[in-house]
Amino acid sequence: MHIVPIDGGVCASLGFESSAVSAGIKNQETSRLDCALVVSREKAVVGGVFTTNMVKAAPVIWCKKVCERGIAQAVFINSGNANACTGEKGLIDVESTAKEVARLLKISEEEVLVLSTGVIGVPLPMERILKGVNECVKWLSPEHHLNCARAIMTTDTVPKEYAVAMQTNKGVVRIGGMAKGAGMICPNMATMLSVITTDAKISKSFLQSALSSVVSNTFNCIAVDNDMSTNDSVVVLANGMSGIDIELNEEDKEVFLHALYLVCERLAKSIVRDGEGATKFVEIEVVGAKSRDEAKRVAKSVAVSQLCKTAFFGGDPNWGRIVCAVGYSGVPVDPNKVSLWIADIKVFEKGVPTVYEEELVANAMKNKEIRIKVDLGMGGEKVVFWTSDLSYDYVKINANYRT
Amino acid sequence: MHIVPIDGGVCASLGFESSAVSAGIKNQETSRLDCALVVSREKAVVGGVFTTNMVKAAPVIWCKKVCERGIAQAVFINSGNANACTGEKGLIDVESTAKEVARLLKISEEEVLVLSTGVIGVPLPMERILKGVNECVKWLSPEHHLNCARAIMTTDTVPKEYAVAMQTNKGVVRIGGMAKGAGMICPNMATMLSVITTDAKISKSFLQSALSSVVSNTFNCIAVDNDMSTNDSVVVLANGMSGIDIELNEEDKEVFLHALYLVCERLAKSIVRDGEGATKFVEIEVVGAKSRDEAKRVAKSVAVSQLCKTAFFGGDPNWGRIVCAVGYSGVPVDPNKVSLWIADIKVFEKGVPTVYEEELVANAMKNKEIRIKVDLGMGGEKVVFWTSDLSYDYVKINANYRT
Repeated sequence: MHIVPIDGGVCASLGFESSAVSAGIKNQETSRLDCALVVSREKAVVGGVFTTNMVKAAPVIWCKKVCERGIAQAVFINSGNANACTGEKGLIDVESTAKEVARLLKISEEEVLVLSTGVIGVPLPMERILKGVNECVKWLSPEHHLNCARAIMTTDTVPKEYAVAMQTNKGVVRIGGMAKGAGMICPNMATMLSVITTDAKISKSFLQSALSSVVSNTFNCIAVDNDMSTNDSVVVLANGMSGIDIELNEEDKEVFLHALYLVCERLAKSIVRDGEGATKFVEIEVVGAKSRDEAKRVAKSVAVSQLCKTAFFGGDPNWGRIVCAVGYSGVPVDPNKVSLWIADIKVFEKGVPTVYEEELVANAMKNKEIRIKVDLGMGGEKVVFWTSDLSYDYVKINANYRT
Repeated sequence: MHIVPIDGGVCASLGFESSAVSAGIKNQETSRLDCALVVSREKAVVGGVFTTNMVKAAPVIWCKKVCERGIAQAVFINSGNANACTGEKGLIDVESTAKEVARLLKISEEEVLVLSTGVIGVPLPMERILKGVNECVKWLSPEHHLNCARAIMTTDTVPKEYAVAMQTNKGVVRIGGMAKGAGMICPNMATMLSVITTDAKISKSFLQSALSSVVSNTFNCIAVDNDMSTNDSVVVLANGMSGIDIELNEEDKEVFLHALYLVCERLAKSIVRDGEGATKFVEIEVVGAKSRDEAKRVAKSVAVSQLCKTAFFGGDPNWGRIVCAVGYSGVPVDPNKVSLWIADIKVFEKGVPTVYEEELVANAMKNKEIRIKVDLGMGGEKVVFWTSDLSYDYVKINANYRT
């Protein structure tokens, strides 16, 4: 497969433009970017994956409808306010936002995605939002992708974007994307958003199934904390402007899937690396599971355990906490079949501690990147999961009063 | 009902004696108490509730068998080592411990409960354990209950004991108990243990069902972190030495149940108040649920949310995090029926933020004790759950290297 990284972020794909402005939504006194717009020159096929939280933000409810219809041409995003827990007014506000984008771009409001991230339970400041829409439309260009990635940041410390070009049998196809997410903001965010674009020609059904399957192995295999947002959204727009139909050829379909995986993997990992207060990046591989779902439940149990996360922070080779978290994951594991490695050192084998050099394990736990492997000894399925540690700064960031 | 607090802790019930010694298990250099023994003069009916972690410590496996047989006369407890993840050797070590207790007390080893709490994955230092057993047997007395509660502490900062006397139709019956638990120890504990005694005359089946039902409303309604231990155990011994059969009379059964609830509630709350790094005590009441189980899942989702816990720590009246945690609890709530109170101030009503005085809510969140109430608007079931906050000290205690 020939897949190479390219510049351009969310605008790396042919026919996409973007812009970012400050509309005073994050903070009226400063000029932090807080509105972003991504527009495709042509109508695009759209797929989306959204939070499964029963409390869904108004923009999530709106976007799910757009994705069901399957066509979109613009994505407007604001940070600083999540438009969640805002009742009927929240739904009206999303619709007004979409209508304004549609009016200015001369497209249908039904083809405008709206994403929001920020504080929960506060009505959107609509005057400023509509000002943001108007400004964004004026400044559209393929050059503004990085500012666009900046405008969607909340407690993020770095903008997150990535793009690749892939060689298909008919020529080059591009996928670009941006994401935000670090935990939550001034307080209340827990939100991850990602917008991905491609110039591949592709059907709605293949695009949606490709996105769903890739997200389940990337964005849904990360945890900073255990708080699932009201706003989590990943959308992908495919405008076909490369002229290349990647579904005509099995090999091209695979290349596309792999390229989409690479973009989502990079963005997902960058969210973990930028996790609130994170000082470590931890990869948890669970093998020997009866099903992928069970592997994931075990991995997540370790990834969100406060005890494991504080051990990662402290560089404490205290693997008993990991075995303990495997045990309470809800998966009916047999302790006498469970083995555990830290880095590549086996510390626990089929229910019994091994004899190992404690100093080697202690050193491995002190690294910035820690690899954990758990073998459940029950089957052939596996998963790789990424998480961060739990530090003083995590508590500091999230204990601070909102105002 | 006539139920009054009395002194005497785990020895408040007639015919129970205890002792506590230092055997160098917590630390060979210091003389911290780390072995405790509770003995009934007569054989006692026994009930128990144990961790549901698939990885069960060896003493848990042993005690479950004792409880199935239903008779016990002694409980030996060590702190400093959990005897968990220790394979076949762990099981042999529990048996050797029980045998030594039995030999010295001239009872059957099958009637000796053994509980352990401490570091996971390290074999028990059997020489010191057996020395501890021998010393404990020498010092048995009804006076040593408080030292006994001290000997089972790990990261606990205060010993936890409570006892009540109740007036039945036939005379006075007593229930006494002690507990430990704060999170985990030097590192790796997450363990809560509790030993409860009573001099009531009672059948095995009623004792077990009373304990199970009371534990589900007390010890199983608390969370310091979300890490379920390999060692959690609550055992109750009823030696009948009051001569009063509390099952002869419906009213007496109710008094007994309520008294047992009061003892377990007090001990459970004292674990939360002594939670690792805890600065706040938070009571979460969930009402309007379709079932008690659903109410509990919602309450626990809020109780273990890192975002809610850091907000409690920071005194941040950021109720959006609470609604968010309700939404991802796994219970199919309808956001438009959910209402939320902080202290007695309604901040969210049927999916919409209310108009409230922000300062009042901010002040309520700054208190040492915080009350949260969630109405799901779906049914008539409810639960009360207790939790602590997530502070810098929690991270500090658990990030520290073991050795």
